[in-house]
Amino acid sequence: MKQITVGIVGYGNLGRGVEKAIRQNPDLQLEAIFTRREPNGVEAGVPVVHISEAEKYIGKIDVMILCGGSATDLPEQGPQFAKMFNTVDSFDTHARIPEYFATIDAEAAANGHVSVISTGWDPGLFSLNRMLAEAILPEGKEYTFWGRGVSQGHSDAIRRVEGVKNGVQYTIPVEEAVAKVRAGENPELTTRQKHLRECFVVTEEGADQARIEKEIKEMPNYFSDYDTTVNFISEEELKANHSAMPHGGTVLRSGRTGENSTQIIEFGLKLDSNPEFTASVLVAYARAAAKLSAQGDKGAKTVFDIPFGLLSPKSAEQLRKELL
Amino acid sequence: MKQITVGIVGYGNLGRGVEKAIRQNPDLQLEAIFTRREPNGVEAGVPVVHISEAEKYIGKIDVMILCGGSATDLPEQGPQFAKMFNTVDSFDTHARIPEYFATIDAEAAANGHVSVISTGWDPGLFSLNRMLAEAILPEGKEYTFWGRGVSQGHSDAIRRVEGVKNGVQYTIPVEEAVAKVRAGENPELTTRQKHLRECFVVTEEGADQARIEKEIKEMPNYFSDYDTTVNFISEEELKANHSAMPHGGTVLRSGRTGENSTQIIEFGLKLDSNPEFTASVLVAYARAAAKLSAQGDKGAKTVFDIPFGLLSPKSAEQLRKELL
Repeated sequence: MKQITVGIVGYGNLGRGVEKAIRQNPDLQLEAIFTRREPNGVEAGVPVVHISEAEKYIGKIDVMILCGGSATDLPEQGPQFAKMFNTVDSFDTHARIPEYFATIDAEAAANGHVSVISTGWDPGLFSLNRMLAEAILPEGKEYTFWGRGVSQGHSDAIRRVEGVKNGVQYTIPVEEAVAKVRAGENPELTTRQKHLRECFVVTEEGADQARIEKEIKEMPNYFSDYDTTVNFISEEELKANHSAMPHGGTVLRSGRTGENSTQIIEFGLKLDSNPEFTASVLVAYARAAAKLSAQGDKGAKTVFDIPFGLLSPKSAEQLRKELL
Repeated sequence: MKQITVGIVGYGNLGRGVEKAIRQNPDLQLEAIFTRREPNGVEAGVPVVHISEAEKYIGKIDVMILCGGSATDLPEQGPQFAKMFNTVDSFDTHARIPEYFATIDAEAAANGHVSVISTGWDPGLFSLNRMLAEAILPEGKEYTFWGRGVSQGHSDAIRRVEGVKNGVQYTIPVEEAVAKVRAGENPELTTRQKHLRECFVVTEEGADQARIEKEIKEMPNYFSDYDTTVNFISEEELKANHSAMPHGGTVLRSGRTGENSTQIIEFGLKLDSNPEFTASVLVAYARAAAKLSAQGDKGAKTVFDIPFGLLSPKSAEQLRKELL
């Protein structure tokens, strides 16, 4: 089979992760990286092209993997690229997914492309497992625990506090709560009972640490509903010990069948690198997008619409023989 | 939407599990149960019909759920029913899947039906997770641990030993091995290092228990490659404590991305009732088979070919909004 040609749009942590993931998949070939920056300033093993030149690659690239953020990049780039290419993205603003889907679907369908939206692990693999478990165990209760991992949103929130120079926030599942769910107890859990928040904060010289700690702990939406710990550390310590981007979590469903049998389905991830893992999921869905497009399919798709077999480089026959 | 009408073929543990699972799914309606026994002797809340009368239900039943065994029932009933109906089964003789697929595919395709083969949890959900994890983390190692649970094949093997009246065998994963995999150590594990086998055996009066224990422990294929413990108990104790059919297990993949990030994907089941859970999976795939057939699809399918969204009673729009 001919290699699937891929482009990367946006060359931050996620884009670099996609570049590395493609190297692990010999059926995929990276053609070019598209950036809004000055391309001459970007080092990479393939051509780096200004995003405004993407149109010239129509016909040369089977799938564009969009690695921008959900706040401002994807709402603009998603529809624009769906017009020209098959695309895959990790749009993760849950509340705006229906609207984003409709916009992308219109462009992709009108132009004969396949666009897989909102993939990665949450939304993505976690969504798949929530859905699967609900379909199999309709009488049950679902729990998602995130972490231990770095939350970008909460780290940003810390950094906005006056007197804070830098900071990293870890979301941590409460082990006792996870254990209760695994034991089939179907507990009712408040926000506070499910996750802890642990902050590592670097302050500016002379800053009032007591005031900063109070401000963080009482911050609505982000911290006030949680048991939060704040640790003040040096910039050096932050760089040395808190530069990695681990994450993960667990989706559990505990259900009942028959008279009273407890049945538990669990899906978990333990990730050293959140962006590299998300990138690996995007790459597998890029393969699926190219295959669907080659079959004549078009329009926006989510993880719910795509048979798992299309994610693999193996043929259906090989999958039945080796993996069923 | 009109209810999907379902028939059950074979009314053992699995068939009874399917009957109970259908009650949890208001979009499905059980029409009749088909049996090889004398139908008058079978109690159920719906018509019980001799299997030879199934043909009369063509046009009245959307999907037949085949609940027979893989050794002799399904190789005969699978093709026969695929000729008349959409079907779902749990054919689990791994080595014969390609051949079974081809036979069913020919009948189903020629007669315009959809037949989902080899679903349940292994083959089934475990296969899906092995495949997904391999596609996302191509550079990695996969581990499947089964149990703690009752293995029917091993229990049967015990019962064939001379002097044994009854027996139950539990397959137990070695916790230390599981912990190493979860820690990202990618250990090389022998058969003995992965699972233990625990037997509860009732002997006939005057039987030589030492000889029986030796014979079990040295039985090739079944026990000789494992650390096996044999406990002799009374028939009463066996009935009281070992009549349930718990099972489960874990599929783990530990892979590397980027320079050297360890990424772990884990899928686990903890089941009070193996047949009831398998039944719940069959029922979700029966819904998918009916939907695929309504879309004009035909032929044999496996879990790899079916988008998860079709397993749910919810619409694609609802899934995007509620579960993505």
